[in-house]
Amino acid sequence: MKRSITKFLAVLFLFASVAYAADPLPSWNDGAAKKSIITFVGKVTTPGSPDFVPVEERIAVFDNDGTLWNEEPLPVQLFFVIDRVKALAPQHPEWKTQEPYASLLKGDPKGVMASGERGLVDLIMATHTGMTTVEFEQIVKDWIATAKNPQTGKLFTEMTFQPMLEVLAYLRASGFKTYIVSGGGIEFMRAFAERVYGVPPEQIVGSSVKTKFEMRDGNPVLVRLPELNFNDNNAGKAIGINQYIGRRPIMAFGNTTGDKEMLQYTQGGSGARFELLVLHDVATRETAYGPARGLPNVPLAHFTPELDAYAQQNGWTVVSVKNDWKTIYPSQP
Amino acid sequence: MKRSITKFLAVLFLFASVAYAADPLPSWNDGAAKKSIITFVGKVTTPGSPDFVPVEERIAVFDNDGTLWNEEPLPVQLFFVIDRVKALAPQHPEWKTQEPYASLLKGDPKGVMASGERGLVDLIMATHTGMTTVEFEQIVKDWIATAKNPQTGKLFTEMTFQPMLEVLAYLRASGFKTYIVSGGGIEFMRAFAERVYGVPPEQIVGSSVKTKFEMRDGNPVLVRLPELNFNDNNAGKAIGINQYIGRRPIMAFGNTTGDKEMLQYTQGGSGARFELLVLHDVATRETAYGPARGLPNVPLAHFTPELDAYAQQNGWTVVSVKNDWKTIYPSQP
Repeated sequence: MKRSITKFLAVLFLFASVAYAADPLPSWNDGAAKKSIITFVGKVTTPGSPDFVPVEERIAVFDNDGTLWNEEPLPVQLFFVIDRVKALAPQHPEWKTQEPYASLLKGDPKGVMASGERGLVDLIMATHTGMTTVEFEQIVKDWIATAKNPQTGKLFTEMTFQPMLEVLAYLRASGFKTYIVSGGGIEFMRAFAERVYGVPPEQIVGSSVKTKFEMRDGNPVLVRLPELNFNDNNAGKAIGINQYIGRRPIMAFGNTTGDKEMLQYTQGGSGARFELLVLHDVATRETAYGPARGLPNVPLAHFTPELDAYAQQNGWTVVSVKNDWKTIYPSQP
Repeated sequence: MKRSITKFLAVLFLFASVAYAADPLPSWNDGAAKKSIITFVGKVTTPGSPDFVPVEERIAVFDNDGTLWNEEPLPVQLFFVIDRVKALAPQHPEWKTQEPYASLLKGDPKGVMASGERGLVDLIMATHTGMTTVEFEQIVKDWIATAKNPQTGKLFTEMTFQPMLEVLAYLRASGFKTYIVSGGGIEFMRAFAERVYGVPPEQIVGSSVKTKFEMRDGNPVLVRLPELNFNDNNAGKAIGINQYIGRRPIMAFGNTTGDKEMLQYTQGGSGARFELLVLHDVATRETAYGPARGLPNVPLAHFTPELDAYAQQNGWTVVSVKNDWKTIYPSQP
């Protein structure tokens, strides 16, 4: 039985390779970045190749914010925080004078920033906890169905990166399991990632709060508690990959210093490995950031000159959005 | 492309169903338990059935100790602890007088038990932490390749339950993803579960310690720390399922009170659900335990009269090993 399934899968992947032989990445300009992806996938999926990797070990991990979708002027989840504080404010009259809620409600970002990391954690806990996991999923689904980027007027889900959607599809058709490994909330992403990226809930790794099991009127529920469970940023990404996936990826995709350890951890395995960073060197101020290569330094997202140098030294592919991508967003979302 | 893959998968699963049409569970006696499994799988996988469940939502979770393999006279991981303490003792002369190590080295289980839960945690941390994740995996792989049950003289990996191996294979051939959700160590199980059960590392949920990311001579490693990260027992199983899988299972299999919340959580979802408990009512004292139905009460593993009653009230399948299973262990491991 197992042998027959293996044979069927072999046919399936052969079919997939043939179908993609034309151009698996049509939104990518011909160049070193595109070539590096296709060359790598070719060598790990060709039976008999010295770099061949069995299907079960084809794990690829992707950062989300700034790698799979736009993260400017703020990561999408922070817009969710803002909208939820506004929606919940009538039930919290004390927020009118209590920081950082007061500044947020007045639309004063500097006032919010003044309360530091502690203030940000307060805002996240006030908007992300106290409800069941099922309730939270519905809140996110309802919000993301209509929430728009204030600079472009597009739905956030219309601002996924078309070239990266093609990479996800190409890898899956080549027998890879594609995972998201993001500093964002794991249950926030699970509410839309399957629809938007084709990545199922069990292939999302992210930051999380603790939950508590309760029977309510005979029904089992998990209640979201205002206590951090896991911070999936920086070294947390390597730790999260081991904890959730338990297998070292062979490909990793990121876009900021927060992804460095994830790419290092991927590269540290034996056999063929691939690491890629997206550099947003586009002309419009709204989405360009470094500070590498003289690009603007924006809050929260950073591609530093040190990261740039480290990538060069270690053979990581650096994607120039300006030169490597024909289009950024899907034309028909 | 996506449509073609779907078509191929449909053919694949059709093929699988045909192949299994004869008898997917040959080691099960005909009876209510076997019938309940086959009836459930039939109704959730038959297109057009009112209970049909799409492939991506076919998640089944299995406890490990006592559900997929024998856990008497002690869970396998505790034999690992004992053997590791003995192997490490020459490097720890202080253990000769320090409890619970001294009692363990003298082969005095009562002395070990006298140090309580704190003592057990000490033993686990001393044997499971301080090394990298890669080193730990190798230690477990080396150990389990030769470690034997002291009562039967069989390899622990030869004492998997043949009827449950058939359930795993049957469900996978029916489009299910099969997960292990165990109180045992996640990285302990990952070292052999793919070989022994066909369950890959990313489909294991278990208890864990915290890890730390470090660069050692330019190589990224994760060091296992003597600090509990997650306790995947009782309510922890429902919490772990949500945290790791992010989707509510439609089938759950366990064998003790520690699995109750996992089965409750599974049953709490909408649509068709299936819950099963294995009751070890076999004649030999070595592996029988309750204390339900007058069976012996053994240390660590418990199937209580209350659990038995709860299962009956809630329509859970209770497997009588004595009556429902033709064989227990694989004849050709």
